[in-house]
Amino acid sequence: MDLLNKLQHQGHELTSRALDRHLRIGVTGLSGSGKTAFITSLVQQLTVGDQPDNLPFFDVVRQQRYLGGRLAAPLLDVPRFPLEANLRALQQTPPIWPPSTQGWSQLSLKLRYKAASGLRAHLQSRSELALDIIDYPGEWLLDLPLLDLSYTQWCEFSWQLFAKTHRKDIAAPFAALLSSVDPQNATELQLQTLTEQYKQLLQQFHQTPGAYLNQPGRLLVPGTLAGAPMLQLFPLLPVQANAASPLSNKLAQHYDSYRKHVIKPFYQQHFSGLDRQVILVDCLSALNAGHAAVSELQQALQLILQSFNYGPSSILGRLFKPSISKVLFAASKADHATPEQHKALTLLLQQLLQQPLKQSQYQAATTEAMSIAAIRASKSGFVQVDGLAQPCISGVGINAQALTYFPGEVPAKLPAASTFNQHKFGFLPLRPLPWQENQLIPHVRMDHVLQYILGDKLR
Amino acid sequence: MDLLNKLQHQGHELTSRALDRHLRIGVTGLSGSGKTAFITSLVQQLTVGDQPDNLPFFDVVRQQRYLGGRLAAPLLDVPRFPLEANLRALQQTPPIWPPSTQGWSQLSLKLRYKAASGLRAHLQSRSELALDIIDYPGEWLLDLPLLDLSYTQWCEFSWQLFAKTHRKDIAAPFAALLSSVDPQNATELQLQTLTEQYKQLLQQFHQTPGAYLNQPGRLLVPGTLAGAPMLQLFPLLPVQANAASPLSNKLAQHYDSYRKHVIKPFYQQHFSGLDRQVILVDCLSALNAGHAAVSELQQALQLILQSFNYGPSSILGRLFKPSISKVLFAASKADHATPEQHKALTLLLQQLLQQPLKQSQYQAATTEAMSIAAIRASKSGFVQVDGLAQPCISGVGINAQALTYFPGEVPAKLPAASTFNQHKFGFLPLRPLPWQENQLIPHVRMDHVLQYILGDKLR
Repeated sequence: MDLLNKLQHQGHELTSRALDRHLRIGVTGLSGSGKTAFITSLVQQLTVGDQPDNLPFFDVVRQQRYLGGRLAAPLLDVPRFPLEANLRALQQTPPIWPPSTQGWSQLSLKLRYKAASGLRAHLQSRSELALDIIDYPGEWLLDLPLLDLSYTQWCEFSWQLFAKTHRKDIAAPFAALLSSVDPQNATELQLQTLTEQYKQLLQQFHQTPGAYLNQPGRLLVPGTLAGAPMLQLFPLLPVQANAASPLSNKLAQHYDSYRKHVIKPFYQQHFSGLDRQVILVDCLSALNAGHAAVSELQQALQLILQSFNYGPSSILGRLFKPSISKVLFAASKADHATPEQHKALTLLLQQLLQQPLKQSQYQAATTEAMSIAAIRASKSGFVQVDGLAQPCISGVGINAQALTYFPGEVPAKLPAASTFNQHKFGFLPLRPLPWQENQLIPHVRMDHVLQYILGDKLR
Repeated sequence: MDLLNKLQHQGHELTSRALDRHLRIGVTGLSGSGKTAFITSLVQQLTVGDQPDNLPFFDVVRQQRYLGGRLAAPLLDVPRFPLEANLRALQQTPPIWPPSTQGWSQLSLKLRYKAASGLRAHLQSRSELALDIIDYPGEWLLDLPLLDLSYTQWCEFSWQLFAKTHRKDIAAPFAALLSSVDPQNATELQLQTLTEQYKQLLQQFHQTPGAYLNQPGRLLVPGTLAGAPMLQLFPLLPVQANAASPLSNKLAQHYDSYRKHVIKPFYQQHFSGLDRQVILVDCLSALNAGHAAVSELQQALQLILQSFNYGPSSILGRLFKPSISKVLFAASKADHATPEQHKALTLLLQQLLQQPLKQSQYQAATTEAMSIAAIRASKSGFVQVDGLAQPCISGVGINAQALTYFPGEVPAKLPAASTFNQHKFGFLPLRPLPWQENQLIPHVRMDHVLQYILGDKLR
């Protein structure tokens, strides 16, 4: 009996230390993709939602081997994901979506379960997995491609982007301002004034539906770098960038410094520690915003995917040895469409990813795509229309009006530009459903999410 | 001729590298003490104000050996002191004081001069000194004493402070809130709610004249640490702190983490690199605010002075080998009193510092005290009162009214508490004098400042 205890204890030590008992999962996505709601729901499902009815496709729960999850003691010097504040937002009357976070934050959990088979099942009554969930802005990943672009190339890239229909008018005043600038003048006043104008432009883009691809990623949220000269950074007009001048030289210096002091350290110090990655994509809002928006989303995803391209000639391969083995792409807010449209939504996401996926060499990481709703904002049902059952959803609109409606079909393929001329997509934004503490958080397919990103570690 | 050139070149290499040709000067002071105006003026005096008439007591200028100063290329990844923006503030109509900065920033200069004598004078036609001027909040130095206090001791210290007359009423609601708290409850919600309340209290103190001593220094400006659990930190009532409970235990952990991850790194990474230090003290505002304010200023200076106490048993001696060799205490805004009162102002500052100076062992650093105005806000003169010439100053008040008045006498000694009952000090705040670009910035004794902190390096 003492020997058995000892063996069990030793086995436990072994598993927590030497074996693979610690997992770091990154959660990211472009602004508005639903990161905060996703992590809030994920943690609730793992800590209080672990009933087979609620998570039928999460094997460890369905097989009743899951013993429970709890929050672990946080690292005191790392920003903590504000779970409790987010849950309070859902409990407001009326409920509101949790506020989005602006930087890197983390939440740590301990998951306990019975091993299904193997040595561990024999030696231990329970196994434990330490799980770190890490939230960071997808915009930071949009900076990676800058490592492979010169300042001049970045200017060309930026102004090609700013020429797109949904950006052109917004960018026109900044283009006119740059045209009037003397490139021999690289004074502090000139640099600061133009940077402030570029920041305003980025803020306008940020509020423009479908303008996903905003670089550099840290200009609007500089943190302790505020005031560092390298953050005086904006794309000159290509003709200006191509001509050597005090202004273009100085901006090229700042660009190089930004790559060295911001982009590389993020990948080397933070990103390199992740084991798995969830990337949320709000396809429905892109459809709402039209053809240019969908095209830009595809382009942004292509750039983001470079962070998961581990080929020997990849940018990351030159920086460090990556360790991300699984990447889940999740089309978020699926509950804003009717359930029979979810399949099409997944196919659409796959098509958005297809081109970049083909181009990349995923030597280490496996990928999956699915449609989910981390925190349901609608109930689905049917209404009788001319004697036929028509699928519908009901929820509460942003202006507090109760809605029951059919939001329309989700295209399973990228619609042609002409489609957007004939048809306007209108997937309405909804408020979260009312929620009380200790209730389950209603979701769509969070069990599939959990099974994909955690299932193999809880066997 | 070629040999001479070579010798000169070698001499120059020698001086810039091996010799003592690089100086880092820290400029600090509590909020409102005039750091931004001081650095703005200092840089202007060194770059465009180098005429003997303007800086008569700055030897290198008076001896016409100063060849000029210019801004050096900044480090691109370090926040840069916003000199140009500050100068623009002075050029507004009406002129406004430059906005205060919230964190660490730096400005680098190259100063050229002819050496007065010695090897350098023979070998070189000109010598160069690289000067870094570093701005940081004096509040950060108020954190040093926490390294020698336990969490419980800090709570006792804080609530003794909050019992002072000018703080008591403001702190009463937070004290009442803490009294009603269940110390068994150390949930995230509880910690966050109480921290938010303490932040509000700190903000109120921050706006209270004479409430100088606010700890911890980073709670209101967390930078990238925002959301880190260790910043959930506030002083429990001493009776609560002295009793072990989940709440007191958790706060003690956060306190330790704050000391480890905020205070120590500041001293080891930033403060340890300084060669000299200017500390600005606004004595006149303290006098305006009354006896409790002057007492607290004295107490705050005592704590700040611990950062310059290098005795073997000092806190700093245990952290690193300090290199600050000169500390200048400057009573700022001297131009808000009439010139014949400046001597008394210097004596008052010396008395404010006397007690702590006695207690400390300044083994390495020499100290000096003087009264200055970095950017003059008044002109001084005389008015005839009953046939007698009475000293006065004239300037523009904060509400745009033109003023010519005698602001009153500055006490050369710390006034007794009773004095404040009989006499109210009223040194009015003034706007800066109108200033045009390329004009000299009018000042009081910036030449003495320059001579003390730089004179020996420009011989």
